[in-house]
Amino acid sequence: MRTTPTAATIPAVDGEPLDDRYHRIRRITEALCTPLQAEDCVVQTMANVSPTKWHLAHTTWFFETFVLANVLPDYRVYHPKFRYLFNSYYNAVGEQFPRPERGWLTRPGIDEIRKYRGHVDEHVRELLATAAPTTLHTFTPLIELGLRHEQQHQELILTDIKHVFSCSPLDPVYRDRPVDEPIDASPARWHRYSGGMHRIGHDGTGFAYDNERPRHETYVRSFDLASRLVTNGEYRAFIDDGGYERPAHWFSDGWHAVQSNGWKAPLYWRNDGDRPTAMTLAGPRPINEAEPVCHVSYYEADAYARWAGVRLPTETEWEIAADTRPIEGNFVEVGRLHPAPTSSDTGAPSQMFGDVWEWTASPYIAYPGYRPPQDATGEYNAKFMCNQIVLRGGSCVTPRDSIRSTYRNFFQPDARWQFSGIRLARDLT
Amino acid sequence: MRTTPTAATIPAVDGEPLDDRYHRIRRITEALCTPLQAEDCVVQTMANVSPTKWHLAHTTWFFETFVLANVLPDYRVYHPKFRYLFNSYYNAVGEQFPRPERGWLTRPGIDEIRKYRGHVDEHVRELLATAAPTTLHTFTPLIELGLRHEQQHQELILTDIKHVFSCSPLDPVYRDRPVDEPIDASPARWHRYSGGMHRIGHDGTGFAYDNERPRHETYVRSFDLASRLVTNGEYRAFIDDGGYERPAHWFSDGWHAVQSNGWKAPLYWRNDGDRPTAMTLAGPRPINEAEPVCHVSYYEADAYARWAGVRLPTETEWEIAADTRPIEGNFVEVGRLHPAPTSSDTGAPSQMFGDVWEWTASPYIAYPGYRPPQDATGEYNAKFMCNQIVLRGGSCVTPRDSIRSTYRNFFQPDARWQFSGIRLARDLT
Amino acid sequence: MRTTPTAATIPAVDGEPLDDRYHRIRRITEALCTPLQAEDCVVQTMANVSPTKWHLAHTTWFFETFVLANVLPDYRVYHPKFRYLFNSYYNAVGEQFPRPERGWLTRPGIDEIRKYRGHVDEHVRELLATAAPTTLHTFTPLIELGLRHEQQHQELILTDIKHVFSCSPLDPVYRDRPVDEPIDASPARWHRYSGGMHRIGHDGTGFAYDNERPRHETYVRSFDLASRLVTNGEYRAFIDDGGYERPAHWFSDGWHAVQSNGWKAPLYWRNDGDRPTAMTLAGPRPINEAEPVCHVSYYEADAYARWAGVRLPTETEWEIAADTRPIEGNFVEVGRLHPAPTSSDTGAPSQMFGDVWEWTASPYIAYPGYRPPQDATGEYNAKFMCNQIVLRGGSCVTPRDSIRSTYRNFFQPDARWQFSGIRLARDLT
Amino acid sequence: MRTTPTAATIPAVDGEPLDDRYHRIRRITEALCTPLQAEDCVVQTMANVSPTKWHLAHTTWFFETFVLANVLPDYRVYHPKFRYLFNSYYNAVGEQFPRPERGWLTRPGIDEIRKYRGHVDEHVRELLATAAPTTLHTFTPLIELGLRHEQQHQELILTDIKHVFSCSPLDPVYRDRPVDEPIDASPARWHRYSGGMHRIGHDGTGFAYDNERPRHETYVRSFDLASRLVTNGEYRAFIDDGGYERPAHWFSDGWHAVQSNGWKAPLYWRNDGDRPTAMTLAGPRPINEAEPVCHVSYYEADAYARWAGVRLPTETEWEIAADTRPIEGNFVEVGRLHPAPTSSDTGAPSQMFGDVWEWTASPYIAYPGYRPPQDATGEYNAKFMCNQIVLRGGSCVTPRDSIRSTYRNFFQPDARWQFSGIRLARDLT
Repeated sequence: MRTTPTAATIPAVDGEPLDDRYHRIRRITEALCTPLQAEDCVVQTMANVSPTKWHLAHTTWFFETFVLANVLPDYRVYHPKFRYLFNSYYNAVGEQFPRPERGWLTRPGIDEIRKYRGHVDEHVRELLATAAPTTLHTFTPLIELGLRHEQQHQELILTDIKHVFSCSPLDPVYRDRPVDEPIDASPARWHRYSGGMHRIGHDGTGFAYDNERPRHETYVRSFDLASRLVTNGEYRAFIDDGGYERPAHWFSDGWHAVQSNGWKAPLYWRNDGDRPTAMTLAGPRPINEAEPVCHVSYYEADAYARWAGVRLPTETEWEIAADTRPIEGNFVEVGRLHPAPTSSDTGAPSQMFGDVWEWTASPYIAYPGYRPPQDATGEYNAKFMCNQIVLRGGSCVTPRDSIRSTYRNFFQPDARWQFSGIRLARDLT
Repeated sequence: MRTTPTAATIPAVDGEPLDDRYHRIRRITEALCTPLQAEDCVVQTMANVSPTKWHLAHTTWFFETFVLANVLPDYRVYHPKFRYLFNSYYNAVGEQFPRPERGWLTRPGIDEIRKYRGHVDEHVRELLATAAPTTLHTFTPLIELGLRHEQQHQELILTDIKHVFSCSPLDPVYRDRPVDEPIDASPARWHRYSGGMHRIGHDGTGFAYDNERPRHETYVRSFDLASRLVTNGEYRAFIDDGGYERPAHWFSDGWHAVQSNGWKAPLYWRNDGDRPTAMTLAGPRPINEAEPVCHVSYYEADAYARWAGVRLPTETEWEIAADTRPIEGNFVEVGRLHPAPTSSDTGAPSQMFGDVWEWTASPYIAYPGYRPPQDATGEYNAKFMCNQIVLRGGSCVTPRDSIRSTYRNFFQPDARWQFSGIRLARDLT
Repeated sequence: MRTTPTAATIPAVDGEPLDDRYHRIRRITEALCTPLQAEDCVVQTMANVSPTKWHLAHTTWFFETFVLANVLPDYRVYHPKFRYLFNSYYNAVGEQFPRPERGWLTRPGIDEIRKYRGHVDEHVRELLATAAPTTLHTFTPLIELGLRHEQQHQELILTDIKHVFSCSPLDPVYRDRPVDEPIDASPARWHRYSGGMHRIGHDGTGFAYDNERPRHETYVRSFDLASRLVTNGEYRAFIDDGGYERPAHWFSDGWHAVQSNGWKAPLYWRNDGDRPTAMTLAGPRPINEAEPVCHVSYYEADAYARWAGVRLPTETEWEIAADTRPIEGNFVEVGRLHPAPTSSDTGAPSQMFGDVWEWTASPYIAYPGYRPPQDATGEYNAKFMCNQIVLRGGSCVTPRDSIRSTYRNFFQPDARWQFSGIRLARDLT
Repeated sequence: MRTTPTAATIPAVDGEPLDDRYHRIRRITEALCTPLQAEDCVVQTMANVSPTKWHLAHTTWFFETFVLANVLPDYRVYHPKFRYLFNSYYNAVGEQFPRPERGWLTRPGIDEIRKYRGHVDEHVRELLATAAPTTLHTFTPLIELGLRHEQQHQELILTDIKHVFSCSPLDPVYRDRPVDEPIDASPARWHRYSGGMHRIGHDGTGFAYDNERPRHETYVRSFDLASRLVTNGEYRAFIDDGGYERPAHWFSDGWHAVQSNGWKAPLYWRNDGDRPTAMTLAGPRPINEAEPVCHVSYYEADAYARWAGVRLPTETEWEIAADTRPIEGNFVEVGRLHPAPTSSDTGAPSQMFGDVWEWTASPYIAYPGYRPPQDATGEYNAKFMCNQIVLRGGSCVTPRDSIRSTYRNFFQPDARWQFSGIRLARDLT
């Protein structure tokens, strides 16, 4: 099955050979853990949060299970129980260690998991170096999927550790950053888009998840889209106007969530005497009014929009607007790890990429003609196409090269621990 | 404000004057309670179920609150606490008695509630008889809305008492009916519909709920729709093939529902030794293989469709197919109160109306350009446009004249106590 | 097995022949339901509460199951499913309909249950009239147990309907009574009892439950017992002094109950503007400061005593003091159905019997040498000897002839829906 | 306040000067953590379990809060938030970090907590070295209490880490030990004790907790006590005889616990194919039939005794028997960390101390005349005197010098994670 490799056989993404790419992305994951103590990497502060070391192991399990164990006839798994321990939700692979108990796993420790990563990396890179071209052809898409999956977990490592640190009275800092200079948010304006037949979804060039396909035609009415994200200052006006006290703004389920969870502000906002603060990855910081509001649920995003007399964009509208924009913005590489104010007003919507995931008005369902893949990775997206809402555009903790205008993220409507925010849209009157 | 009425001033629906219509529909509600003892009308066997007497009172409260109290300057409410007790979910009207505690209300008893109905009926009919034409113009839409609302609760009275009776080891019978003659279901066939631009939604002629509007254009791909509903026999094949044991068929949330609720068959199916039975409004009956399967959740409907290699229709597809069909079928007036087999094969899909509500693949959201009404009745539909799925076509407990091809019913994806079933669709290959 | 009876063969209790006694007590149960509508008799407002009609049926089931079905060889049960439906907790009899679902049983209705009672009564009285003396000897203890059991349920019918009515915004009245004349409670005094060896428990003459036996010796230190019950006025002083806000007064579990249930006053107290009221069987009434405080849990009774610097009596102390007192007081026969103030000061503790069940400091455990009966009635008391607290003396809804100084009632320490109150004791300093 | 110390001023316990004693006991705690990784010390696998590092910090907090902060006028706390973070349940000290969230605290890490221990140790030892005799007199009882408290937490560190490790599919080993030689348990015999007046409770010489006082007279009937603990083999006979399937053996609450928790055997027993094993601190081991059964709840202990036709001893009976026995046995110092079989048969009950805590039949309540201390440490025992059961004798993870014949341990009747077992008693026939 193996043969002498040549440089030409290893595929490349954007000019980066796959083995370099594999090495680079795997190292980034590990670098994200540098500021963390061993104890930080173990705990699970709610069912949605996974321990850091679980992320490190699960991403490795992905390569071991879907690539090495399938491709290498003699491969021996690193540990026979890891297949069970680090399976997230793949029923086709077998039973899974219960998700809400991930925080009970003290072993393997972080050092052992680093060894596990090393073991798998060594085999993957050897495989890339020695596989026959025909074999390469079959498994490189799985490696690419594994790397995209790893990038998703890079984002989750940051998202989850923020929640963990927010539960500590000691206010740990993940990465310090200078205090922002005061800035006024530019007024939001409306950009108009013409209705008619449009095509959305991924066209098949380069990587995309199955749920972005097939590219298809859809009919849209003309609409206006806001030039920037809703800010903390604007959201505070909603709060001050009794936003969290008036059921008229809310979906019935949203109002129930407000009541039963006691929501009075976005997640991580605190009332520390005079000056309200919010927990950030740089520790508690005064709330910057010009920044995009963040860590709101779909319920809050929708209620805000109703209060403002407008609505959220559909995912189709969002994609039409985003399709022509460059993929630039406040991504994880910027290192801020927090949404940033915008001052530019360029004649096109700003902040479409990065900063915060933007809640759309669209429930997450299959595109017309969609068929899930028939292998184990078919569980990757399709089985979540119920009770979730689409978000678009990536956030300040998303790797830049993992995002596309067709990328469909999705979460339950009450989820608030993601870096999620609001952009407004409206019908033409 | 009042004047001598003339027959001409009272509006009519389908040739039936509004006062006759009011009298007729209100009497039907009461006739539905004839088979019930006082004790049957009190209990609440789960949060979704309301006691019969609550339905009787709440529908009356609707007319008292939205019509009498608004229109008659001197109107004195029947009881000062009923505004609170029988408010379902209208925050604009005020606080509501907690829904899960409706079954704790022993008072007012059924006799008192009949007096309450009489009191309100008398005032409504007097109002209709004496109001000035201009006044009539303002409140007759509310009376019509109240009657449609009453018809919805007629259906719920039957749906809910079925659940109540199903909880009793004594197997009470609501209405007996003869045993069905054996019949074989005709094989299901596919009917093809051409893609392109279509218009769906209500065009404004006659009554419709706000959520059916605005009528709007939408683009659809060609599709096939099944000629009849999925039968008990077909659904049993799914069960026998391990349908409830294989996660691959299910949405992630659906699989969780299967596991945590221990679902192994549709609601009301029982394993009574040799011959399986199902609880019906005629008591436990052997399961008729040719009948449409009923009391399945959206999760089960979708899993069945995936298992069968096809899918559920979108609500758009369903409406395109239904639009040209006469509104005929097994409705409450037939008196069977249970889905019926079909033997006809007419060249067009049968059972589109009546028998069972058909789960579509469409999350319940607003139509493009939708704006909720700005009065209290604006809470009627809009605030539920999250986390629910659209069902179409009415059922065997739906009043025939309350249904339309544009009618959008909606329930949570795990709801099973409604008369809900399955019709299949597929993409063109 | 049968023979012609003679008057002499039917045993008597306190001079009342058993058949008269059976008739009298069964009629009292039914008379308690006179003020109730059919709807009142169905509902279950919490797991501890049973519907009135369940009490009516369950007490009848007791005679049918433990007497008729055992003694009469040809006896046919009234309905084959009643053995299951109306079994409370006797595992030896078979499976039980789930307790928290008793409120779902609309059938049998109250009329059917009255027929069931009549059927069983007829057979019991015929049995009493015709059984041979030797047979009589075997089952009359079970009939006597059944009558005592029926009296316990008479009390529960009143206790439970009070809870049901308290959940209704309509404030139903079970039985009206005149407003009390103002009265000042006499100051409480201490009565001293000498320590040493004492005998407590039932001596075997006349009826007693198994848990009152064996009479046994126990060593007690000298103690003081309060001359009367703690009043509403005294309890209010505890509340006003922050009693419900200071953990120092409370058991750890009690403080948890306060916090998680939001307790701020006894059950049924309401804050209706200026003048606080409490729900009673005569509807809401202003709180009478001289009345004994009622509907407090063991946690509250103990916290009150600690706050007052003293303690609750042990059940041994209580019985020593009660042993010499006549069994007189405010029982159900008085018809007040509510605790009454005392003005007498007789040189001995007053209110020892009737008014309210008095929480003791004693966990409910077996007396030394206790052995539970080996038949099905052995489940009557023994299996509850864990996690419950002994109460003594009966209440204003207890039948007078069912109480004894040795009677041990028992409830969970957080139970508040019983007519339960507080008497203080203290050590000698 | 301070003066030059002399050796004579530092009190001693059993000839060991207090400063040596302090040093020794604190070091033992730390030594217990040697086999643990940082990750092991963080997690909380159920509300009753605390993370190892929480134990390390909380015991330190005890000295800081009750000694240093009270005695040293200039003492600066190590960290201002530790007073809140590491307060277990002392309401008098202030608010407490929620117990079920202790496992969310990643910071302070284990290294920081070691520094905290060093900081406090330094100050305590300096205080002991320099305090004036009059001052010494006031705080040495608190230091002694703190050391006893620390010993309790030494036991909990082992008890809790056993639970943590039992939740891991990797079966971590805390401390390996050789496989036991096969041994047959000697048959259990009965030892008779004469009834009459006895004195129990602590007489005031040496250390005792408040709940062991006052020593008092009590009357007891003659009884028999088993010569040894119930073994795994005996308990298995109970299981094999349907012990967990027959409600007749169980308290009502116990049966409910069996049903709702799915208990089928003691905690930590596993069904690994042919040969059943149990999780131990040496990892999974085959179940040794001659060993005392361990990790049973009070419900199981009582059910076993009922099944065996006898009962559990009262705490009075246990203490009468233990009073004359030397305090010897399988304690933590033996290093086995697991109950051991007994082969000796000495004419007196064996295994009274060490091996397993013995469930008594006695609810945990105050002794006659008991008064809780009036300072903050008054919360130490008294507020738990409800809903718990007394256990006696210490276990294989108890420090030998912390146990006494009067020592009263107490846990909820459903607790199974303690090293708790069964000794039988019976009445004289």
